[in-house]
Amino acid sequence: MLETLKQKVYEANMSLPKYGLVVFTWGNVSGIDRENNLVVIKPSGVDYDELSADKMVVVDLDGNIVEGDLKPSSDTATHIELYKAFKDIKGVVHTHSPWAVSFAQAGIDIPAAGTTHADYFYGDIPVTSPMTSSEIETDYEKQTGLVIVKAFDERTIDPNQIPGVLVNDHGPFTWGTSPSNAVHNSVVLEQVAQMTYHGLMLSNRNSRMDQELLDKHYLRKHGKAAYYGQ
Amino acid sequence: MLETLKQKVYEANMSLPKYGLVVFTWGNVSGIDRENNLVVIKPSGVDYDELSADKMVVVDLDGNIVEGDLKPSSDTATHIELYKAFKDIKGVVHTHSPWAVSFAQAGIDIPAAGTTHADYFYGDIPVTSPMTSSEIETDYEKQTGLVIVKAFDERTIDPNQIPGVLVNDHGPFTWGTSPSNAVHNSVVLEQVAQMTYHGLMLSNRNSRMDQELLDKHYLRKHGKAAYYGQ
Amino acid sequence: MLETLKQKVYEANMSLPKYGLVVFTWGNVSGIDRENNLVVIKPSGVDYDELSADKMVVVDLDGNIVEGDLKPSSDTATHIELYKAFKDIKGVVHTHSPWAVSFAQAGIDIPAAGTTHADYFYGDIPVTSPMTSSEIETDYEKQTGLVIVKAFDERTIDPNQIPGVLVNDHGPFTWGTSPSNAVHNSVVLEQVAQMTYHGLMLSNRNSRMDQELLDKHYLRKHGKAAYYGQ
Amino acid sequence: MLETLKQKVYEANMSLPKYGLVVFTWGNVSGIDRENNLVVIKPSGVDYDELSADKMVVVDLDGNIVEGDLKPSSDTATHIELYKAFKDIKGVVHTHSPWAVSFAQAGIDIPAAGTTHADYFYGDIPVTSPMTSSEIETDYEKQTGLVIVKAFDERTIDPNQIPGVLVNDHGPFTWGTSPSNAVHNSVVLEQVAQMTYHGLMLSNRNSRMDQELLDKHYLRKHGKAAYYGQ
Repeated sequence: MLETLKQKVYEANMSLPKYGLVVFTWGNVSGIDRENNLVVIKPSGVDYDELSADKMVVVDLDGNIVEGDLKPSSDTATHIELYKAFKDIKGVVHTHSPWAVSFAQAGIDIPAAGTTHADYFYGDIPVTSPMTSSEIETDYEKQTGLVIVKAFDERTIDPNQIPGVLVNDHGPFTWGTSPSNAVHNSVVLEQVAQMTYHGLMLSNRNSRMDQELLDKHYLRKHGKAAYYGQ
Repeated sequence: MLETLKQKVYEANMSLPKYGLVVFTWGNVSGIDRENNLVVIKPSGVDYDELSADKMVVVDLDGNIVEGDLKPSSDTATHIELYKAFKDIKGVVHTHSPWAVSFAQAGIDIPAAGTTHADYFYGDIPVTSPMTSSEIETDYEKQTGLVIVKAFDERTIDPNQIPGVLVNDHGPFTWGTSPSNAVHNSVVLEQVAQMTYHGLMLSNRNSRMDQELLDKHYLRKHGKAAYYGQ
Repeated sequence: MLETLKQKVYEANMSLPKYGLVVFTWGNVSGIDRENNLVVIKPSGVDYDELSADKMVVVDLDGNIVEGDLKPSSDTATHIELYKAFKDIKGVVHTHSPWAVSFAQAGIDIPAAGTTHADYFYGDIPVTSPMTSSEIETDYEKQTGLVIVKAFDERTIDPNQIPGVLVNDHGPFTWGTSPSNAVHNSVVLEQVAQMTYHGLMLSNRNSRMDQELLDKHYLRKHGKAAYYGQ
Repeated sequence: MLETLKQKVYEANMSLPKYGLVVFTWGNVSGIDRENNLVVIKPSGVDYDELSADKMVVVDLDGNIVEGDLKPSSDTATHIELYKAFKDIKGVVHTHSPWAVSFAQAGIDIPAAGTTHADYFYGDIPVTSPMTSSEIETDYEKQTGLVIVKAFDERTIDPNQIPGVLVNDHGPFTWGTSPSNAVHNSVVLEQVAQMTYHGLMLSNRNSRMDQELLDKHYLRKHGKAAYYGQ
């Protein structure tokens, strides 16, 4: 069942330690089959070197296990809320990559400060509001997803144009057009967090880039007028 | 004698350079056999690539060598005090990992600032008070252990819930349910020190996370209501 | 056609990930045949592990493809402007190396603060002025080159003595006497950005080194009186 | 001639890139035969992967080449002044390791801030005064050595107890009882520069450790009462 997607999700998970984004089991990748509304995700707390494609867990959009002997990632409910709200995405990644976490812990957006950022994220990468006591106490992981969705709704951010977020005092989630694309966006988010941290330390005046430059870089890679690549 | 424990302590020591926690011989791991009150520990000043399981030294809780041709780690007396005071722990690690040392040298706690921290440490990781002249002059390594224990006593911290400490102007000690678990906690402490350093530089207002979020993350991994992992 | 130059440009491109200067496809190296006014450059958006010498693209100084099945780097027009204005250079490199980008995003020069810098760059490494809306809208990549040239003209900087620049809110370009020499200068620029960042954090008074020391180090490696090396 | 010493100096040079202390050819190690007053040193500007023991150059204490086909390191005259003034040392290292350079560029000592430092350096690691115009203009490398010696003389620092220095706006020199011991001290200096940089950023109050703790750690590893190691 969903052998191709399982393989893709497995490979995307394995690329997290390769890119230096995770320590121990601190990360997970999922993918979705939009036709059947089934999500394939890493099992919970399993070491990366013990993973294989057939250990991936299949769940439906209510979180029920449809296939698999292992429990799915404890963050599964968060992934599901993202798939339900952001209709175009096909992969989700969560890590505790250190530079992104630093911004999450500081509770501040990563401002769109340069073209590296603009090539992938069409504006600031938002940090969510802190979760309330009731959000934490009941269905915490599901509420985490809803808090992300709320941040995008309230600030009218298009999740296809800003494919990532910082959960307050927690860490980054990213998404994309496939599991591997979502990982790609996680790598980018960590890189821009590092660059922008040091840029802010050097000078925190006018950290945000000009809108024209942001437009230029984002749009030369995305949309109808894109001309980057082959 | 204690062949299994020696092997575990040897492997835990060898994992320190693998995780990038030590340079040269700046670290040591021990384990305890609680039935016989015997501690197995790395020999002093021996390079990691010259270590083997049978070079591990066995000492009793008075610090007497029970087995082994080499002198035990110079920090042995510190490990012993931790085993004597913290009855549940079965492994102890000391390193000079650079981010943790930075907090130790600054003399400030690592505040519980995010969920990475909360997944393993149920509150701030304390820094001890500076050692007094008399503590330094007589039985320094034993006094180092006692200063750690005093920090936990005075602040009524449960060492099972905060499995690590920063010795002032020195560096981290961690412990755990086994030698490898204690190493795991050393890796986590170094990671959260790195993340929280940068978070504090970005914003030092409200660096401490909400208690509800701390509770949620710690308790979903520890205790009766835990649900993380398989 | 230009087989030797293609091989050199290919090898120079492959050295970018080796030196840790690029993530994904975020960099490109070109070389020029000054006799025939032909530029050899990396194709756009191709992964480094899929590159080969025969995939390099040959363009003329108007940007027309003279040979090659792939589209040239989207930054080709920038490279061309540099070759046209800086008559002695034979290689150009662009990366998003993180320390250099931090200065670019902060919009500040890398001051000549120590001898590592002085061994290769005879003065501050300039940041360009921000690009104007019209420069961004029309022929952006060509205008990027012209903005670099303007920075050197207005500040009367000799591009042979300062073989690199930071494009505002973007990142570094470097050049040199060959493609590999231009890569060498990219590595140096990233190193001095890292060193000088931390030096500025420790003390931002008198960050610029004395002119005599700058002269000594630059001139013992460059020009008629050089005596470094064999 | 001096085959054993050449081999040791060669191996010590090769350990510099292994420990991450050098980029390109930015470092050199020498050793001295105190009986014959001959110094063995790396040739100038030769890549590490082209080095071999028989390429090491032998010079006397006036800087004359006694054996070797290549020119010695451009820093040879600095090494010689250190050997002449510091009678007990048998190896000298120069690098541009980035954390140490940051302190050198800031022009500030590395304060003795923790036990990692105290285990090897019995007090602050001094930065020299800036070199004067006349020191730079004539016999620059020899004057660099004399400026180091002057710093130790004026502040009455024992070079056996503080086996390293930061040359102002330049970088670190270290020394030791052998070429490999001098490299060891370079690694330590870089580590403590990194730790102490971050400690100073977290809190710059009372950065210097207590004298008793400094005494304890230095003296448990050095001198008659040492008890660390086998």
